[in-house]
Amino acid sequence: MAELRGGIDLGGTKIQAGIVDPGGEVVGEARHPTPTEGGPEDVAAAMATALREAAEDAGVEPDALIGIGVGSPGDADEKTGAVSSARNLPGWEGSFPLAENLQEALGTEVKIGNDVQVATEAEFELGAGKEFESLIGVFWGTGVGGGLVLAGKPWLGRGAAGEIGHVVVKRGGAKCPCGREGCLEAYAGRKAMEAEARSRHEDGEKTDLLKLMEKHDKPRLTSGIWERALDHEDKLAEELIERAVEALGTGIASAINLLDVEAVILGGGLGIRFGERLMEPLTQEMEKHLFVNERPPAVRVASLGDLGGAIGASLLVSR
Amino acid sequence: MAELRGGIDLGGTKIQAGIVDPGGEVVGEARHPTPTEGGPEDVAAAMATALREAAEDAGVEPDALIGIGVGSPGDADEKTGAVSSARNLPGWEGSFPLAENLQEALGTEVKIGNDVQVATEAEFELGAGKEFESLIGVFWGTGVGGGLVLAGKPWLGRGAAGEIGHVVVKRGGAKCPCGREGCLEAYAGRKAMEAEARSRHEDGEKTDLLKLMEKHDKPRLTSGIWERALDHEDKLAEELIERAVEALGTGIASAINLLDVEAVILGGGLGIRFGERLMEPLTQEMEKHLFVNERPPAVRVASLGDLGGAIGASLLVSR
Repeated sequence: MAELRGGIDLGGTKIQAGIVDPGGEVVGEARHPTPTEGGPEDVAAAMATALREAAEDAGVEPDALIGIGVGSPGDADEKTGAVSSARNLPGWEGSFPLAENLQEALGTEVKIGNDVQVATEAEFELGAGKEFESLIGVFWGTGVGGGLVLAGKPWLGRGAAGEIGHVVVKRGGAKCPCGREGCLEAYAGRKAMEAEARSRHEDGEKTDLLKLMEKHDKPRLTSGIWERALDHEDKLAEELIERAVEALGTGIASAINLLDVEAVILGGGLGIRFGERLMEPLTQEMEKHLFVNERPPAVRVASLGDLGGAIGASLLVSR
Repeated sequence: MAELRGGIDLGGTKIQAGIVDPGGEVVGEARHPTPTEGGPEDVAAAMATALREAAEDAGVEPDALIGIGVGSPGDADEKTGAVSSARNLPGWEGSFPLAENLQEALGTEVKIGNDVQVATEAEFELGAGKEFESLIGVFWGTGVGGGLVLAGKPWLGRGAAGEIGHVVVKRGGAKCPCGREGCLEAYAGRKAMEAEARSRHEDGEKTDLLKLMEKHDKPRLTSGIWERALDHEDKLAEELIERAVEALGTGIASAINLLDVEAVILGGGLGIRFGERLMEPLTQEMEKHLFVNERPPAVRVASLGDLGGAIGASLLVSR
């Protein structure tokens, strides 16, 4: 039972906790929806609950873990353990001492890192990116996040590298949840896609998306709802997914033209659910804009699945 | 006189040769226009002539140089010394053994590198980028090229990194000389700008650009002609330069969102000529799209000027 680490992946939709052994295997796990109301304290409380349940699943006490890593959205400061500007979380515009709060609640050391960066590193170390030396992780979910590994090492820049969701795909284009115009996320982020679907529905376009959401008792258009709508050949869902794939292909091609990495790892809720299904249109869109189009990068779906973020977060502990 | 290196910067408009001492100082130089007709042999002959004149200017025989470096557009293979797909040069779609050809003509070892990558490294080692650890070089000229230095080292990816000119700024946008749509270069490259100016002139828009070109006996719209047209408040020139600056700001912001480097070094014929004059609108456009806009990167005009490419090329010799 020695040497177990905890990992918590804090997403815009769900909190995934895992207990990870030294070989990278998940020996206990739990999942909670991310609170949609309240503030950072409520989110932290839900995170502590998820971690306790995962520990119970693994048959270990939280304070017996050698440490817990957290992959967080927003601006996660590895040194202070504070998280600020987590826009996709309720009431989290300011700074909140997340590591300190969880450390008190769970009784072991807590380290904080950027959610997509740790998930990228997990795929690089243990998942779909194992065979490559350089890659970009693209996490297609509530927002569109990214992480970079160059020559075998994470590239963080001045701390905020990898924001592929805010690579501009269309100057003067759609409004992004970040407030800017034409970002990849403005077309492909689930939050932006839901806003577009609601707005077009209000303007009279026919769609079953919102009916399906109510029928399945979901508070928002989850990736499962989008999938059902595609299975029903819902025209608006098809159109918005196609629009998202076009934007993803364009933004990823821009990143490859700039970085020329070996591989693209596609993760996130929508990426994992739709990666294989949409691989062909996605790579076609990408290749339209690749400058060296005779040797496109490998494109792989994240293989650690929903647990990649929590596994990656647990890797923070050994640092 | 010992330890002198030659450097040749092969551009779409001009060939700049320099003789460089071990401290990075240029002790002899010469410049020739790049042939607009013929093929690679003609271009190589003009390069050899320029280098011989620079050597004469420095009072040294070409075969007494410890080596000559060449910064070339297109796909420059450092290992074989061949250059292929140099689209901005006449008749140079295929592969040509440039190093071998020049070595025979000049009697000393010749090394080949990518023009913008060597110019970026020159600025990093000796120029405007000296104080930074990570930067992107943006070379705004006939095309728009780029080079990366990350954590003090060149980042080449699989050999073709840094193509910021083919980062997409507008999906479905203007046709680029590379054949794709919406690339930064489609709006900001001098070749694309000239094509747009000619097309709008043919459609009846008023402009003095072409008159100025004829008056000053230039075969194309050089950066000097663009500057004169701006000085004359030529509306079309103003509009096309503004459009270029918007595209540059957008593409550079996308690169910063992805890489979060410390600095942007703006070089190239148009970049050096207009960098200071257009710094304010350029940084304003950039900041519209920066994800972490409270700490924008430093933006500096290349300080080695027109000689940066030749100096950077000469640095290839010591490798």
